[in-house]
Amino acid sequence: MTTAELDRLSVVLVATRNPLNVGAAARAMSNFGFSRLRVVAPYDVAFREARSAVGAPQLLSDAEEFENVSDAVADCSLVVGTTAAGKRELVHPLKRLEEGAVSIRQALAANRVALLFGSEKRGLSKSDFSHCHWLIRIPTRDEHRSMNLGQAVAVCLYELVRTEHSALAATTATTTASLAETAELERMTQALFRALLGSGYVKHGAEKISLEKMRRLVRRMALNREDAETWTGALSKIELALDRGNIGAKKED
Amino acid sequence: MTTAELDRLSVVLVATRNPLNVGAAARAMSNFGFSRLRVVAPYDVAFREARSAVGAPQLLSDAEEFENVSDAVADCSLVVGTTAAGKRELVHPLKRLEEGAVSIRQALAANRVALLFGSEKRGLSKSDFSHCHWLIRIPTRDEHRSMNLGQAVAVCLYELVRTEHSALAATTATTTASLAETAELERMTQALFRALLGSGYVKHGAEKISLEKMRRLVRRMALNREDAETWTGALSKIELALDRGNIGAKKED
Repeated sequence: MTTAELDRLSVVLVATRNPLNVGAAARAMSNFGFSRLRVVAPYDVAFREARSAVGAPQLLSDAEEFENVSDAVADCSLVVGTTAAGKRELVHPLKRLEEGAVSIRQALAANRVALLFGSEKRGLSKSDFSHCHWLIRIPTRDEHRSMNLGQAVAVCLYELVRTEHSALAATTATTTASLAETAELERMTQALFRALLGSGYVKHGAEKISLEKMRRLVRRMALNREDAETWTGALSKIELALDRGNIGAKKED
Repeated sequence: MTTAELDRLSVVLVATRNPLNVGAAARAMSNFGFSRLRVVAPYDVAFREARSAVGAPQLLSDAEEFENVSDAVADCSLVVGTTAAGKRELVHPLKRLEEGAVSIRQALAANRVALLFGSEKRGLSKSDFSHCHWLIRIPTRDEHRSMNLGQAVAVCLYELVRTEHSALAATTATTTASLAETAELERMTQALFRALLGSGYVKHGAEKISLEKMRRLVRRMALNREDAETWTGALSKIELALDRGNIGAKKED
């Protein structure tokens, strides 16, 4: 999301009772790059001092206070409410967060959007809902639907900024590009083979089969270049130590 | 996600200081259908009374307490740490949450997974990281990366249960079906450590750092159970041979 788009979203907290939750909401906003916080009739006007907003004092002091929802959303083209209620209990259209977020992102491309969160105890009222175009619901389980306010804000904002995995796949393909080449894996295989031969793990007569087993084992590891080198170095050191030990043992015979 | 899959995930809170955050984590778990909470060396043992876990008293009283990370993740095949740090500051592989969640969901199809969260102030330590296969990072902005613990747990769990729009779910689940459990990987790590100690590869005074390095190296290999056993057996044999060699060498002195 662009800075302009992030800036078009207002998080509106309606009748929040606990200043800690205002702080938590502010912190999540700051984490995900949003800056416009609006509060409607908060229970405690001391919300600006909410301590839990670690790293977001500016956002809190810039927060705008409104007497009612109507004023708080007046400049927004799209107003979305959040609810823990199910479809049956509502007259408003309800979308799952994953789906609603797509619509919100589209709207933010050119319009101001308000995202409303109700009080800890009651959520948004029917009157609050009446200002909303539609509602979203975080996909919590039916037996325990209602989320903590600060957590609900964090989850909704995360969904707005998250990148689809399919889009990420393209960029991460390059980061796995440092897989070890076959020649490196073979050096490691040989070092492993010699170490195991020296230790007596590989039985005489079974050398060929053992080597092939080890080759497959090493290939299954999907090692990157650095790790393959580490292994080869460690195994070579073992081989050397075993050689020294065997010479010692032989001399002793 | 099926109930069995939800049940395979353990949320592991390491050295959490604030009982309210334990409660918030429990609440988010309950919201999204997870039930296994583990705490490692919590600051306040009164965590079971954490009040903010509205609707999740059972989950909290069922929470298991461990003295160290190693014990807390022993029965898990995949151990994922969470961090606010960037790629440059880390030696561990780091995935964005969106990407990591795909791998976690695949693993949950047949394996136990541990998802670790560090303390509020410091996050997970390097030593904690050494038990992890890889790390995930919630895509917060660089200027304010660190999230509130309860909110971070909520966002991660939400990502795990959300439904992909473009349902491109990977079909590689079968290949990860028999991943080695952490206890097995740890046996292999210890065998590797002893073999390298015996060979002189591990320098005196560097034992702790070397062990952590090896732990990470082994976790990066994504070994299946059989291969982990093969490695442990082979490394133990090497250790034995080195011991014998050293005795021989000593007798010679």
